[in-house]
Amino acid sequence: MPAKNSRKTLATRERILEAALALYNLHGEPNVSTKAVAAEAGLSPGNLHYHFASKSELTLALLQRYEAGLLPLLATAAEARNVEDAWLFVHMLFEQMGRQRFLYRNLNDLLAGSREIEARLQALIEAKGQSMALLIAGLQHGGTMEGDMHAAGTALNIMVMLLCYWLGFEEVRDPRRALDPDAAAKALRRGAFHVLAVLSPWMEPASRDHLRALSAQYDS
Amino acid sequence: MPAKNSRKTLATRERILEAALALYNLHGEPNVSTKAVAAEAGLSPGNLHYHFASKSELTLALLQRYEAGLLPLLATAAEARNVEDAWLFVHMLFEQMGRQRFLYRNLNDLLAGSREIEARLQALIEAKGQSMALLIAGLQHGGTMEGDMHAAGTALNIMVMLLCYWLGFEEVRDPRRALDPDAAAKALRRGAFHVLAVLSPWMEPASRDHLRALSAQYDS
Repeated sequence: MPAKNSRKTLATRERILEAALALYNLHGEPNVSTKAVAAEAGLSPGNLHYHFASKSELTLALLQRYEAGLLPLLATAAEARNVEDAWLFVHMLFEQMGRQRFLYRNLNDLLAGSREIEARLQALIEAKGQSMALLIAGLQHGGTMEGDMHAAGTALNIMVMLLCYWLGFEEVRDPRRALDPDAAAKALRRGAFHVLAVLSPWMEPASRDHLRALSAQYDS
Repeated sequence: MPAKNSRKTLATRERILEAALALYNLHGEPNVSTKAVAAEAGLSPGNLHYHFASKSELTLALLQRYEAGLLPLLATAAEARNVEDAWLFVHMLFEQMGRQRFLYRNLNDLLAGSREIEARLQALIEAKGQSMALLIAGLQHGGTMEGDMHAAGTALNIMVMLLCYWLGFEEVRDPRRALDPDAAAKALRRGAFHVLAVLSPWMEPASRDHLRALSAQYDS
């Protein structure tokens, strides 16, 4: 019954990935061994190695799974016309990143681990930049932002940096509550607000006020 | 001759700190053992442990030495009246941070290593925030920036985040050139420019143009 075996193999693979994700998010990727992942998944180390020959392969598979969800979301940036759309979009982005927070906690170390991980993480950062450019164009198209935006490249860089490091920054300032669900949800919202706040000087006044009101409402 | 011995002790201590700094900057703090530091300093591991009982103590001493240089510099932010002053100040800040780049490469892991390191890193981030507030007040006083700045707290947070993560972000995008002197110098200047660019929407037009010209001149 090869079909059934293959389904079972896929399920085991998925179980390993979920166990790795949970432990990476909790302890940081450099501090988790494949042995610990196998134990968390209820498997022998040998069984884990049948699915993933090395820790680097396991991390790469998590990254690929993350990409598969993130890239289509990033493309939807082009549809935002107003602050409400943009808020929803950036917030969803932070939710996806928050579920893979390990990536953003040890970005520089992960990169050093493998050339393929490096290339994929760099491509992901590139894709975030393109997505922010689409978001700006959409907001300009919708009349939410001025069409003429000086220093657009600088604003883009700052937005991408916020997308990559905001969650780490929150964790540095309050490390013991980073995984507390309520504190983590607030951290995601503050991240979304700061990303959009970069654009607020170019927003028409009503949109700027709306952004501020949204942030106040969600943070109370 | 206790005085001479004490001088010798201080010199050895300094030699260890320099060796640790060089290795931490090169490989990242989590990837450097005290044994490697001792070898780099030309000492036995026992001799190193006479000066620093643990790696955490060694890291803490580096952090304290860094603070002693950074805190007085942060306080000078208040003196900046125009873009030229601000550029010089933020650039000097990045130079000091660049010399301790290991801190910014593994901020989240360093924090997890010791409560004292955590408290000191958090105080340093706090001090950066206060310094950016002084910088804004000085530029407003000098007529370089509007006195009425909406969302000042958001801009401050973004500036502090740039101060903490810009060098890591540059390294993620171009890891193999992070320690190349020419590339590293450019990365520091781009960091300084992005920090000040956060304020550019509130700058009077001539100052904004001046900032852009400075950045173009230094990046050519």
